[in-house]
Amino acid sequence: MSAPASPPAFRVADLIRKKRDGGALSREEIEFLVAGATAGSVPDYQIAAWLMAVVLRGMNGEETAALTNAMLHSGEVLDLSFLPATRVDKHSTGGVGDKTSLVLAPLVAAAGLYVPMISGRGLGHTGGTLDKLEAIPGFRVGLPVAEFRRVLEVCGCSMIGQTEKIAPADRKLYALRDVTGTVESPYLICASIMSKKLAEGTDALVLDVKTGSGAFMKKESDAVFLAELMVETGERMGRQMVALITNMDQPLGRMVGNAMEVRECIEIMRGGGPRDLRELCLELAAWMLHLGGASKTVAEGRTLAEKTIASGAALKKFRQMVELHGGDVRTIDDPSLLPTAKHTVDVVSPGAGFVSAVMCEQVGTACVVLGGGRERKEDAVDPAVGIVVHKKIGDAVAAGEALCTVHCHSDAQAARAVELLKASYTIADAAPSHRPSLIHRAIHHRSEQSGGH
Amino acid sequence: MSAPASPPAFRVADLIRKKRDGGALSREEIEFLVAGATAGSVPDYQIAAWLMAVVLRGMNGEETAALTNAMLHSGEVLDLSFLPATRVDKHSTGGVGDKTSLVLAPLVAAAGLYVPMISGRGLGHTGGTLDKLEAIPGFRVGLPVAEFRRVLEVCGCSMIGQTEKIAPADRKLYALRDVTGTVESPYLICASIMSKKLAEGTDALVLDVKTGSGAFMKKESDAVFLAELMVETGERMGRQMVALITNMDQPLGRMVGNAMEVRECIEIMRGGGPRDLRELCLELAAWMLHLGGASKTVAEGRTLAEKTIASGAALKKFRQMVELHGGDVRTIDDPSLLPTAKHTVDVVSPGAGFVSAVMCEQVGTACVVLGGGRERKEDAVDPAVGIVVHKKIGDAVAAGEALCTVHCHSDAQAARAVELLKASYTIADAAPSHRPSLIHRAIHHRSEQSGGH
Repeated sequence: MSAPASPPAFRVADLIRKKRDGGALSREEIEFLVAGATAGSVPDYQIAAWLMAVVLRGMNGEETAALTNAMLHSGEVLDLSFLPATRVDKHSTGGVGDKTSLVLAPLVAAAGLYVPMISGRGLGHTGGTLDKLEAIPGFRVGLPVAEFRRVLEVCGCSMIGQTEKIAPADRKLYALRDVTGTVESPYLICASIMSKKLAEGTDALVLDVKTGSGAFMKKESDAVFLAELMVETGERMGRQMVALITNMDQPLGRMVGNAMEVRECIEIMRGGGPRDLRELCLELAAWMLHLGGASKTVAEGRTLAEKTIASGAALKKFRQMVELHGGDVRTIDDPSLLPTAKHTVDVVSPGAGFVSAVMCEQVGTACVVLGGGRERKEDAVDPAVGIVVHKKIGDAVAAGEALCTVHCHSDAQAARAVELLKASYTIADAAPSHRPSLIHRAIHHRSEQSGGH
Repeated sequence: MSAPASPPAFRVADLIRKKRDGGALSREEIEFLVAGATAGSVPDYQIAAWLMAVVLRGMNGEETAALTNAMLHSGEVLDLSFLPATRVDKHSTGGVGDKTSLVLAPLVAAAGLYVPMISGRGLGHTGGTLDKLEAIPGFRVGLPVAEFRRVLEVCGCSMIGQTEKIAPADRKLYALRDVTGTVESPYLICASIMSKKLAEGTDALVLDVKTGSGAFMKKESDAVFLAELMVETGERMGRQMVALITNMDQPLGRMVGNAMEVRECIEIMRGGGPRDLRELCLELAAWMLHLGGASKTVAEGRTLAEKTIASGAALKKFRQMVELHGGDVRTIDDPSLLPTAKHTVDVVSPGAGFVSAVMCEQVGTACVVLGGGRERKEDAVDPAVGIVVHKKIGDAVAAGEALCTVHCHSDAQAARAVELLKASYTIADAAPSHRPSLIHRAIHHRSEQSGGH
């Protein structure tokens, strides 16, 4: 006689009701739901009802960590313990002109740590690291895991895309959240981000949580809430964590557009580049180096980061990584070889005054409209197009002076983007009382050290 | 060239998000969701997420009425305007020993109004009107609509089960709610009940909303909330409405079990029967007669109801209805011909004192355990078994005296029910300060008349 099939451990409707009524699910209950969602043994309509209950009732710290852990273990978890030094990574919640990853991975690797970075593509108004890397001719973001490990071992950093095998529960749940109005929950966002990031096998994680008109979280309080949740969740899972709350009221740096952003990152690694981008890269690097144990304090980490740029070691490491990923390294030595759109259209100021605000999300949308980003996942991107931002908040501007310049292939292509960009600038008679501060605060539970400002 | 298919009027995820964030959906948006759920063009997972958002965010009066209306019009709506007098019905939220429908339909019809009653079966601890009617040998609850109309025309009342064609959206949504933890929402309960009841073509509706240990709503405040919602919804849809909030802390009358309850109803129509059941029947009938225009006041309606019983007209009408439904009318003249369980087991009091409380839901469960009710929809019921309740709250009892008697087919069958019944009684040394009041209040927005107490 065969043994009878064991009945399911829980009744799903009971678990949904518990969350609906504000109760907390146990680790086993959450594991049961996540495993059922991934395997398809719990139907989508039950998962959708549970997700909506989570959106409206929230989760406590144990539940959030249990959900993250269950999603993380739904697929392959990379074991990078063969590497002889600490693994450290950075994750940003997304913005416009947000290109720090391309600087941070080689910089921190050049300073002696390992950076195993699994990134995403742009979607909606925000750009994505993979699209920027692919602006470098030949760069392969789809390395198999074995090759990713080899590049890491040889070079100290490697940057690839999500594989099918990592956190399949997240793909399943995200697809369902996307169509059931359950995306906007800090608990679910935390579990989605953290499950993927921790599956990379990183020991320390620096989070760049954006807030402002170009961020997903327009309100700083929402950004802080999510940041605290992610820091707590990572710490519960034994990782070194920090979150910087940073400003996204205007594009970061001056370049928006894939190849143009690569050029700006090369400028930074050559010791130049715009002040805000340089500042954020140094601060994020300082925390990565500190959490990864390469510096005693954040301030020492910053000094180390500055030296690693000044010595040329960061750029050299970037060149090595590009080469190992099959990219054309001549573009690193001569960035003018990167894809370029020859046609330019200036967006000029209608009057004299000062830039008092930028609708930053709309600048990102203008880049999408040019073909430099995606409205839908399946869209292709044009690496050459983009926007150069000349005027930022607080800058004086004369009537007829260029606020920004669109790089594209024709006037016709530029028209709609120019319109969006024109409408996104507010010009006031007087200078604003202050320019937005770039780094609002650092959230870091285990140490008393400040961000070093 | 063929015309392009028109895109859907709304994006479902937008509607879900609007409700999730506490907004109100328009009539058109709700109609789109209900039509999509019924046709299957909106997937179950989106409907489930919306239902959970409704459970946790609620709906306003317009939304509740729009949902009720959309569900009502998802199928056949009976047009009974050919009947020469007002149509009036009663709906109860369900209880134990709750058998008033069998008295009310013939009583109100005998007084000159029409009662087109579509009822349900028992599920869980509560009984169902259809199961009671089927205890009368030959009684057909499954009349086709054409025959239902003919019986109504000839007799003034007819009692049938839900047809496939009435409110299919309710069947679809209920099946989904049952497995997604979204049953317990007053808004969704209201729309479910009212869509079915208004599809019957009734002009006036009296609601018996139960509260107490044997009701679905244990708390009176929950019962009042649901009652107000249903009264408001019915009035928005042009119906005369009242809701009585009534006590279900103990079984209504003395009989629990299908054939036994039919016998008790015949006693009432013969002018006898237990006081509480008689009182509730008269009060509900008074409101039905008043709302239906057969009496100027509720008090006059009550006098008319009393006369209709005293004259024998109510019982005569019941006999006529049973005959038209194919039932064996000899059982009306001689109720001992109804199915009977010959074996009886007394449940005796362990000590002397007073009954201070009854776990009423457990009494209903005892009847289910005997086979007189259903745990699952597909279960068959035994019409003969049941419980006679001898002692009610406030009654004095001697040690060893019978609290109630189980009617069944064997000692073995009785064992579990006896155990449940024994545990459901609380015997105190002193008499409780008061017996539960039977009718708590009447909720009736359009008139200043009280319930007539």
